[in-house]
Amino acid sequence: MSDNLSAVLDRVDTDFDRSLQRLFSLLRIKSISADPAFNDDCAKAAQHIADDLKTIGFSAEVRPTAGHPAIVARSESPVPGGPHVLFYGHYDVQPVDPLNLWDRPPFEPVVTKHADGREIIVARGAEDDKGQLMTFVEACRAWKNVTGSLPLGVTLLIEGEEEVGSKNFGPFLEKNKADLKADFALVCDTNMWDRNTPAITTSLRGLVYEEIIVKAANRDLHSGLFGGAAQNPIRVLTRILGGIHDDNGRVTIPGFYDGVKDLPPAILEQWKKLNLTPEMFLKPIGLSLPAGEKDRLLIEQVSSRPTADINGIVGGYTGEGSKTVIAAQASAKISFRLVEGQDPAKIRDAFRAYVKARIPADCSVEFLDHAGAPAVALDWGMKPLAAASRALTDEWGTEALLIGCGGSIPIVADFKKTLGLDTVLIGFGLDDDNIHSPNEKYDLKSFHKGTRSWVRILEAFAQVAR
Amino acid sequence: MSDNLSAVLDRVDTDFDRSLQRLFSLLRIKSISADPAFNDDCAKAAQHIADDLKTIGFSAEVRPTAGHPAIVARSESPVPGGPHVLFYGHYDVQPVDPLNLWDRPPFEPVVTKHADGREIIVARGAEDDKGQLMTFVEACRAWKNVTGSLPLGVTLLIEGEEEVGSKNFGPFLEKNKADLKADFALVCDTNMWDRNTPAITTSLRGLVYEEIIVKAANRDLHSGLFGGAAQNPIRVLTRILGGIHDDNGRVTIPGFYDGVKDLPPAILEQWKKLNLTPEMFLKPIGLSLPAGEKDRLLIEQVSSRPTADINGIVGGYTGEGSKTVIAAQASAKISFRLVEGQDPAKIRDAFRAYVKARIPADCSVEFLDHAGAPAVALDWGMKPLAAASRALTDEWGTEALLIGCGGSIPIVADFKKTLGLDTVLIGFGLDDDNIHSPNEKYDLKSFHKGTRSWVRILEAFAQVAR
Repeated sequence: MSDNLSAVLDRVDTDFDRSLQRLFSLLRIKSISADPAFNDDCAKAAQHIADDLKTIGFSAEVRPTAGHPAIVARSESPVPGGPHVLFYGHYDVQPVDPLNLWDRPPFEPVVTKHADGREIIVARGAEDDKGQLMTFVEACRAWKNVTGSLPLGVTLLIEGEEEVGSKNFGPFLEKNKADLKADFALVCDTNMWDRNTPAITTSLRGLVYEEIIVKAANRDLHSGLFGGAAQNPIRVLTRILGGIHDDNGRVTIPGFYDGVKDLPPAILEQWKKLNLTPEMFLKPIGLSLPAGEKDRLLIEQVSSRPTADINGIVGGYTGEGSKTVIAAQASAKISFRLVEGQDPAKIRDAFRAYVKARIPADCSVEFLDHAGAPAVALDWGMKPLAAASRALTDEWGTEALLIGCGGSIPIVADFKKTLGLDTVLIGFGLDDDNIHSPNEKYDLKSFHKGTRSWVRILEAFAQVAR
Repeated sequence: MSDNLSAVLDRVDTDFDRSLQRLFSLLRIKSISADPAFNDDCAKAAQHIADDLKTIGFSAEVRPTAGHPAIVARSESPVPGGPHVLFYGHYDVQPVDPLNLWDRPPFEPVVTKHADGREIIVARGAEDDKGQLMTFVEACRAWKNVTGSLPLGVTLLIEGEEEVGSKNFGPFLEKNKADLKADFALVCDTNMWDRNTPAITTSLRGLVYEEIIVKAANRDLHSGLFGGAAQNPIRVLTRILGGIHDDNGRVTIPGFYDGVKDLPPAILEQWKKLNLTPEMFLKPIGLSLPAGEKDRLLIEQVSSRPTADINGIVGGYTGEGSKTVIAAQASAKISFRLVEGQDPAKIRDAFRAYVKARIPADCSVEFLDHAGAPAVALDWGMKPLAAASRALTDEWGTEALLIGCGGSIPIVADFKKTLGLDTVLIGFGLDDDNIHSPNEKYDLKSFHKGTRSWVRILEAFAQVAR
């Protein structure tokens, strides 16, 4: 280990309480991107991050998009013409409902103890993605404070619309292309394999997110007078959505699996050895039976196979007690996780055709397009990937794994398309972090060793010729 | 026509503006029985009615139930041992959501014009049941004011929980049995055949109302990380509810149609002649295709056949935009309209068994019982029915029809069981009254001629030996 590296790692340890306070300041900002009521909070979070990055020598700017603003911050390479990376994170967070299931106010972060004794940071965004992005910022701070510079050039790009599909980010990248040049990209928004085993994510599922609104009568009706004769939009909607999976957990939409390839036999063998069991993966969330395609391994179901999920549904009377009403409309939000080989536009079209074919002649349907992004499969042989893997293994004392991720980070495809960059995905989240759920948390160890990991990775990258 | 009758009818006409103001006073009280936030308003409505009835010589009392209070008010027969009727109505109203679809505040009644020029009273409860019950009260007032008494003995029984299934009314009847003796019962909570043709309802569908809550994981999950492996309760719920009807509109729950009889051929012939077309019945609500059993007449679908309707459904993220969540639970409200021969308890059990058989092993389901009442078929040969029919025909100049009603008025079965009384159902509602919907209305003509109709019916009843 170089003297520099050793000193910077020490700095991370001694500065850790202050790192935590800085994370807490960011977590207190209610930057919920999905709800326009929090627009000001999103702007505030962006300014907060830019101001902080300026204090450690980045040239940081808040830049507008058609939606919530983004931050672009740059620190040059200490060696002219030396390597330069583009780090991506997002400051926006998911809505907090249902609020009554939180044990404490979601925007008042605390360090507390998990039932099993682990120390955890609890707040909306504690992991996704404020905690994760701050591991990188704190690593940069430690390098700057100890050595006066970073081991390589770094541009940070922090957006505010990841949780709503990054709709305005493509045009933003295009417009800011000149300022975003780099050798490759880094994203800190993924998980470890388990709490002791670091991981680099080399594939991501894509996403198509649709909302459908089924309309029948021109007003709500009394079910006693009209029941039996008037079409009920909830009946239409449940009939359509209830048919999207067959008895074997396969999606029934014609063409859905077109282009989907089986895993290479070698990878399938590796994955079998990982032996992800329902006991490990589902028991912590109170379940026991994998609900995906019956003829696939659990690890395939969650990382390499496409899925359909109904994320929300509402119609008719949902208050206390009873109301004998036939609603005028009902709606649902449905998302599809896509894998390599599936075209988001084709999946969207196939879904819409499937729905339209099942709408009675005197009902109507409207579709809202909330997001669409293809899956991403990274090159397992990339040099930075090997360097990062060694650095992670050094920090955690356990060999880093290369894994597939079931989630979607649409920006990775945009980096390739618009900026020509490959992306290395490294994160310190855990499956039990409750992201997008009440009581979101980030292990204190993830935050601490995550920061230390980046310190090592930044040095490792600097040593890799491109 | 007797001199008395003629004078009382005149009195209705000359007093009509004041009748309307009295109805408005009642409509301004927000007596929504389903929502505990309006408990005080329900109590206020009960007291308001009792106070009003005292002013026209009824011995009126507000009496407690286990839920909202009821009113019992009595006026003795002018002839000792003469006939006595029990009139039933309800002061409670449906919730008003979705409020944004109302053209005006639901508890600020007005008289306005329908698009086709008809004068209408608009407010929640304008028809169901405040407008309807006030036709009877105003008829009594006119008789009392002109002749000093009613043609026969009358007990009014006005409850406050009809819209939530009259759960506490059985025990109330039992307890107040002695004060509710009568020769037969009257209910004013049904419709005319059309706006020129009065009707007496001789059958009512029963009701079973269930809420089901499906639970899967112990918390909301991120659909990227868990999608494909974790069971989604909305998927389970839509699959179950989407299968409750087959392609021909029949309910698929085993045993659902057990005991259901076809109409007697003579009645079926009569109903065919009424020629209820989708054009007449569905076009005004923006539909064109009957959604019930394909091999049944439209009039059968809405009045003599049992049905299943999903009245509400909710689960997951239902706010603006998108959230990639797998919900921990989802719920729905489902009601069944029953006909003669169906046992509510058996239908409830069959439905629950149907659901349970379709719940995955690691999910759970809870049921809430919101209401249950058998169907009612009245004796078409009852004497009071013939008398009422003649009085209605005199008032409207068009022969009164005997019809079946698709709705449920559970109290009618209770009257028979607890008090031994048959019920005559006469009402002046219309299919386009928007009851249980935004912009509920009552035709001004219904209110006026409805009051006049009761004036005539009361005299006709007095002339009928039991």
